[in-house]
Amino acid sequence: MRDEYRADLLQVNKLLVWMADAVRSAMKRATNALLNADQTDAEEVIARDAEVNALYRLVEDKVYDLCARQAPVASDLRLLLTALHLAADLERMGDLADHVAKTALRRHPARAVPEPLVETFEQMGEVADRIAGKISSAISNLDIVAAAQLERDDDAMDKLHTGLFGIMFSPQWTEDTESAVDSALLGRFYERYADHAVNAGRHVVFLVTGETLDTRER
Amino acid sequence: MRDEYRADLLQVNKLLVWMADAVRSAMKRATNALLNADQTDAEEVIARDAEVNALYRLVEDKVYDLCARQAPVASDLRLLLTALHLAADLERMGDLADHVAKTALRRHPARAVPEPLVETFEQMGEVADRIAGKISSAISNLDIVAAAQLERDDDAMDKLHTGLFGIMFSPQWTEDTESAVDSALLGRFYERYADHAVNAGRHVVFLVTGETLDTRER
Repeated sequence: MRDEYRADLLQVNKLLVWMADAVRSAMKRATNALLNADQTDAEEVIARDAEVNALYRLVEDKVYDLCARQAPVASDLRLLLTALHLAADLERMGDLADHVAKTALRRHPARAVPEPLVETFEQMGEVADRIAGKISSAISNLDIVAAAQLERDDDAMDKLHTGLFGIMFSPQWTEDTESAVDSALLGRFYERYADHAVNAGRHVVFLVTGETLDTRER
Repeated sequence: MRDEYRADLLQVNKLLVWMADAVRSAMKRATNALLNADQTDAEEVIARDAEVNALYRLVEDKVYDLCARQAPVASDLRLLLTALHLAADLERMGDLADHVAKTALRRHPARAVPEPLVETFEQMGEVADRIAGKISSAISNLDIVAAAQLERDDDAMDKLHTGLFGIMFSPQWTEDTESAVDSALLGRFYERYADHAVNAGRHVVFLVTGETLDTRER
């Protein structure tokens, strides 16, 4: 019974790593779609969001099934529910990559990001990729050091987000309203992606240490 | 035992109604703060978001406790986890009201919403209030008719959201970039508020009928 339980937990872990890798790859391609007006990448990200949702559903089913079959004690239960929270954050990260891709596609063949913000979004894409990479390795190796570093990466994202508004509200900004609207929303998508990654990291820390952290989204 | 279980469920239900009422009132006041540049209302909404988060935590603790003490069978477990999902959606609605209030406060004493969009945001506020009212009564009376109506209200919100961009991208639009950015983000806050309400409604339908619906966020 105990062995079976461990095997089930391992499978949940594998599914979570799979989700993390999927939402990492999604945001990487979405960023490329955005910066290079790449239609293929944009369409691929949008098409593949369904896979992330399907993985989320698998995690949910697996956890429900585990709870029902094993009637876990309180501490194990909290662990399993934490895995659910983690999956929910990853699923949402997939949605946000999907939003970025859809913005890129809507403006195709034009580039959705205006020239003055290209560098900012390049950097946001890099931070997002670094963050998602850490989440993946934090889950797969139960690496709480990587998980804990996410807060710092999130600070970098917040700084880029603030800088984005600095550029948009400067007197040199001459882009039209549509560009302003797209850029503001895109900035929010990247920022939320990082927020969910930080939440996911906190869930990993809890999974490993059993220590409760504030996991409320901001 | 069974009686105790029922009493616990009733308490979870009460907490959820409390949360729904709180996030309804929060968005109502946030909308007033936004449209009338009302600093008191804005500050009140921001201060009270912590209460919504505390209620969420109470629901979580209650559900964990229930799971641990009662070792519910699979169907009951799914019910309890659905209550958790519902609470998470309500908590997020509170966050979004908080975001609206913060935007109002940041622009105070100026009004964050420019003249051409006042009517749109008035209507978005009305739809948000109607939606939140239905969620509250759907939870407290397990009223699946009210819950099902939420999809239609959400359509109304989506239409307002589309209309908002129509106004902003029209040649008559002469507002500055900051107004465009704020309006785009505010529009998204209201739209997400309604999305979470629709999710919450689906959770209520599931709680009452046991029928699974697609509750993925968009």
